[in-house]
Amino acid sequence: MRIGILGSGNVGQSLGKAFVARGHDAKIGSRTPTSDKLRKWKEAVGGRSSTGTFAEAAAHGEVIVLACSGAAVEDVVRLAGPDTFAGKPLIDVTNPLAFAKDTSPGLFVGTTDSLGERVQRKLPTAKVVKCFNCVNHETMVNPSNTDTKPTMLICGNDEAAKATVSKILKEFGWDDVMDIGGIDGARWLEALVPLWVRVATKKSTWHVGFKIVNG
Amino acid sequence: MRIGILGSGNVGQSLGKAFVARGHDAKIGSRTPTSDKLRKWKEAVGGRSSTGTFAEAAAHGEVIVLACSGAAVEDVVRLAGPDTFAGKPLIDVTNPLAFAKDTSPGLFVGTTDSLGERVQRKLPTAKVVKCFNCVNHETMVNPSNTDTKPTMLICGNDEAAKATVSKILKEFGWDDVMDIGGIDGARWLEALVPLWVRVATKKSTWHVGFKIVNG
Repeated sequence: MRIGILGSGNVGQSLGKAFVARGHDAKIGSRTPTSDKLRKWKEAVGGRSSTGTFAEAAAHGEVIVLACSGAAVEDVVRLAGPDTFAGKPLIDVTNPLAFAKDTSPGLFVGTTDSLGERVQRKLPTAKVVKCFNCVNHETMVNPSNTDTKPTMLICGNDEAAKATVSKILKEFGWDDVMDIGGIDGARWLEALVPLWVRVATKKSTWHVGFKIVNG
Repeated sequence: MRIGILGSGNVGQSLGKAFVARGHDAKIGSRTPTSDKLRKWKEAVGGRSSTGTFAEAAAHGEVIVLACSGAAVEDVVRLAGPDTFAGKPLIDVTNPLAFAKDTSPGLFVGTTDSLGERVQRKLPTAKVVKCFNCVNHETMVNPSNTDTKPTMLICGNDEAAKATVSKILKEFGWDDVMDIGGIDGARWLEALVPLWVRVATKKSTWHVGFKIVNG
């Protein structure tokens, strides 16, 4: 499958490497696609890895992954070209983190709206699926790096797109995937992240997740 | 220990019964302390159980438990008499749930404030500890009713009060308790609850919780 990844930080690089390792063709989009950082990524990953502009990566993808910072989402979507997303599954990994001095981060949107819903409103013909947002980039592609695998919580309005994402999650080793409903669920998946940061700080590791337990 | 419980629904009744079963002296406060419902509760629980007005229950408690609906918090605190809370640990079990027709509940406060913080501001000399808010009333007093015990997440500004609450949690069978910091953490513990409702709906059981897993 051709994957377009918008964002070249740890998240974009880890997901890109994992897609290529599983036989997919992944292009990372960036403002600076020929940077040293991305040249090294491409060299290290090999196979069907490539880099390009945000517009090139979005056009490349049968599935698009939005993996930039929450604050950059509007710019990245504009630079990629909103029409490019039409009809495609869009895996939204972003979080609306509001960073503050001397305290753990909060969110710049929540409770009655979310970044996932904003992305869906901005790209009404994209099939947005919130996914991967509640774990570290290393856990995303290796859920076995916690003592028990966490539950991966996803949401979105399109059933077929969620099925595609669930298939990808299975390839990445996720056994316990739970679909909590429409994209409005992003309000609560994003709200897990300030809690996750506090828990990770307590545990002194970013390899932390939430596992659903039930009777 | 003398416990004052403000609220006589499932949560207040289950916690009251569990406190008495562990040798404590629990008084449930209610607008209607002589109702059939509470008479039956007292008969069934026996031991050192009693009922009274909100003011009587709050005065009774060395530890007070706020276990009313989120919408009733302001009234209940006013009826109990704010001075009665001075210097006491106050276990805040409440959630600011906003119920909506045809959809899962949201929250009426969140992201930049929380019901826990509102309670702490209203009762500045109380030692508010958010606790128990993310599980069903049956799980609160029996964490073994899920396949693996969930993690109990708590927060509050007073270390001694959190130590008292942790001792109570141990008596109730909670092995895995995590203190995530100050009462502002209630923003994220309360935001777990709309997610918890969605997960419970998916799992078709209220005996559902979140377990922290880490590497």
